[in-house]
Amino acid sequence: MDNKQLAMQKHLEWQGKIEVVARAPITSREELAVAYTPGVAEPCLAIQRDPALSFDLTRRGNLVAVITDGTAVLGLGDIGPEAGMPVMEGKCALFKTFAGVDAFPLCIRSKDPEVIVDTICNIAGSFGGINLEDIAAPRCFQIEEELKKRLDIPVFHDDQHGTAIVVAAALLGAAKVTGREPEGGLRIVINGAGAAGLSIAGLLLEMGFGDVILCDIQGALYRGADWMNPAQARMAEISNRENRQGTLAQVLAGADVFIGVSRPGLVTAEMVASMAKDPIVFALANPTPEIFPEEAKKGGAAVVGTGRSDYPNQINNVLVFPGIFKGALAVRAKEITLSMKVAAARAIAAVAADRLSPGYILPDPFDPRAAEAVAKAVAAEAIRLGIARRPMPEEKE
Amino acid sequence: MDNKQLAMQKHLEWQGKIEVVARAPITSREELAVAYTPGVAEPCLAIQRDPALSFDLTRRGNLVAVITDGTAVLGLGDIGPEAGMPVMEGKCALFKTFAGVDAFPLCIRSKDPEVIVDTICNIAGSFGGINLEDIAAPRCFQIEEELKKRLDIPVFHDDQHGTAIVVAAALLGAAKVTGREPEGGLRIVINGAGAAGLSIAGLLLEMGFGDVILCDIQGALYRGADWMNPAQARMAEISNRENRQGTLAQVLAGADVFIGVSRPGLVTAEMVASMAKDPIVFALANPTPEIFPEEAKKGGAAVVGTGRSDYPNQINNVLVFPGIFKGALAVRAKEITLSMKVAAARAIAAVAADRLSPGYILPDPFDPRAAEAVAKAVAAEAIRLGIARRPMPEEKE
Repeated sequence: MDNKQLAMQKHLEWQGKIEVVARAPITSREELAVAYTPGVAEPCLAIQRDPALSFDLTRRGNLVAVITDGTAVLGLGDIGPEAGMPVMEGKCALFKTFAGVDAFPLCIRSKDPEVIVDTICNIAGSFGGINLEDIAAPRCFQIEEELKKRLDIPVFHDDQHGTAIVVAAALLGAAKVTGREPEGGLRIVINGAGAAGLSIAGLLLEMGFGDVILCDIQGALYRGADWMNPAQARMAEISNRENRQGTLAQVLAGADVFIGVSRPGLVTAEMVASMAKDPIVFALANPTPEIFPEEAKKGGAAVVGTGRSDYPNQINNVLVFPGIFKGALAVRAKEITLSMKVAAARAIAAVAADRLSPGYILPDPFDPRAAEAVAKAVAAEAIRLGIARRPMPEEKE
Repeated sequence: MDNKQLAMQKHLEWQGKIEVVARAPITSREELAVAYTPGVAEPCLAIQRDPALSFDLTRRGNLVAVITDGTAVLGLGDIGPEAGMPVMEGKCALFKTFAGVDAFPLCIRSKDPEVIVDTICNIAGSFGGINLEDIAAPRCFQIEEELKKRLDIPVFHDDQHGTAIVVAAALLGAAKVTGREPEGGLRIVINGAGAAGLSIAGLLLEMGFGDVILCDIQGALYRGADWMNPAQARMAEISNRENRQGTLAQVLAGADVFIGVSRPGLVTAEMVASMAKDPIVFALANPTPEIFPEEAKKGGAAVVGTGRSDYPNQINNVLVFPGIFKGALAVRAKEITLSMKVAAARAIAAVAADRLSPGYILPDPFDPRAAEAVAKAVAAEAIRLGIARRPMPEEKE
């Protein structure tokens, strides 16, 4: 049986990768009277008096919605809301497995950003956080921005920010391994100016790694290009210092770092050879990367990362999102800020710091220390920013 | 510690009465590759080709949304969406405990029926059924009707139909106990012409118990009354054969059955004494009934039922909703029809039939046979109607 058949068979067996179970026992009249009528009136009235108590008296304090419109699912594209649900359920299972965070999958039958935003706002009182997933760019930017304005719970588009954070963590490790100062003079080229590429560029710039040039199919984004969408135009204002124009191959020459969030096979060994000495190559197109590690090595790459589990340096945002929400929920942060994302990236890098090598720039995706470290760093930063609504919980709460 | 304090303490301890857990193990790279990327692409593509497969390949086939707007929560009234959530979670825990049905609670931050309907339709692809809960009348009628039109999964407003079904089941038992023919000539007075009262009236008329007079604060509903809402006006057309006018006390004289879904203390022993011989009294206002059983007995009541667990004949819709959705989901019924509700009522009555007495007209709420019997009857009726999308599952699936 091949892997595709195995996946189908397992999904049919599971009949869902998540399940809703009861935490409260209701097996006698006495228990019914406490968990349901008439006892349940008390927590209801308490929440009516103080809506913030909904985080304590219902599951809300540990509960994230994982929401898609099904328009950018994996590399499959716009496959529709219901068809996106196996991915959403998988994500929810990962939230629970890696961080103990309850997550519930929802798909929305609309592609209209306003409808999507309204729908999510209407049900937001049921959740402690909103994880957006697999929503196509540029619509995803508008949706996230509007939700952040209207809601006072964390909203996080994982395809953008989860990817950006894990890439930043990987780059901290790779820079160290190749003897670069992670702060300052790196020249970074990102191929793919969609949701992930734009967020990676923003985070790397915020963290001060150096200059970033973002490329799309038309080549480098530059100030004045007439083919950019609004999000790309904003990015062109703060990236590409020398306002270079040209193809990916042209701007890649001399660069320290290549980050691909684009399509298979776009990069050759020759292109890698044109980069600076000991170049860093993160080829994240999945499952077929922009360049395979063997080829990148032929071009002289000092460190190669991919999205794949069968090569070293798997750059996987499962290192990020469980801990991000665990930390944000732990202190009831009102939002997830850029500085909380920076804190998360540094926390992941710190977990790997004691045994860095060209084949180990990041913790293994299954390293349980990652979610823990991210959660603590994110919670601490929220407290520092004054956007936490309760103090750091005791260890082993 | 009194019961109110106990309920608060337990709710704080539980931190939610439901929990979302992972069914698929994801503890190794191999497992990750099956449950998540890249394996998950297969079930996604399968659902894209045939959306009905979402019932098999995700949790949808066993999953109900329990949705409120928080406007008619218990007897507490319009306490707001978040404040209604402890009840919704309790309901979800009951779904799982009594029937193994996964249920997830959602509250909607709007009182506009169109917004509520649109919001539910937008997320309906995530669920196998919709259980509406604690939505105020008459808005709840419009919302349920519109959802039934727009969705092809079961929609069920439990406050209306769950209550109606369990009352009908109780009346089958009580009629037998008091030597009445359940089909035909009963004179029934229902006090409370809101969501529950109207649905009870509709079901009892459908089942042919006899004539029904519905009373509201203004007295009996009758053809021509100018104070009725549209749902009440429609009911006046098919009930109250003689088109009687008058107060509850006036129309109750000579009646066989009193059913109260109204307010505490509205019925006296004298009013019961004015009813027909061996009258049946269901006083369902909670926690304080329209008349306490002791008082009703003084007035000559032959059978008394209440909503309370500390008296015999607790008339509790927990006997209904878990089995209703279990049966509907089992055969993927497109809707829950009136005849499926009748089948459910008869199935509950049949469970109690072998040991009927004035103090046992219904199965105990914790009788596990009830959900099972309801599920089978509902599924069988859906198949008979041709609205099931798959055959009856094997025993012990």
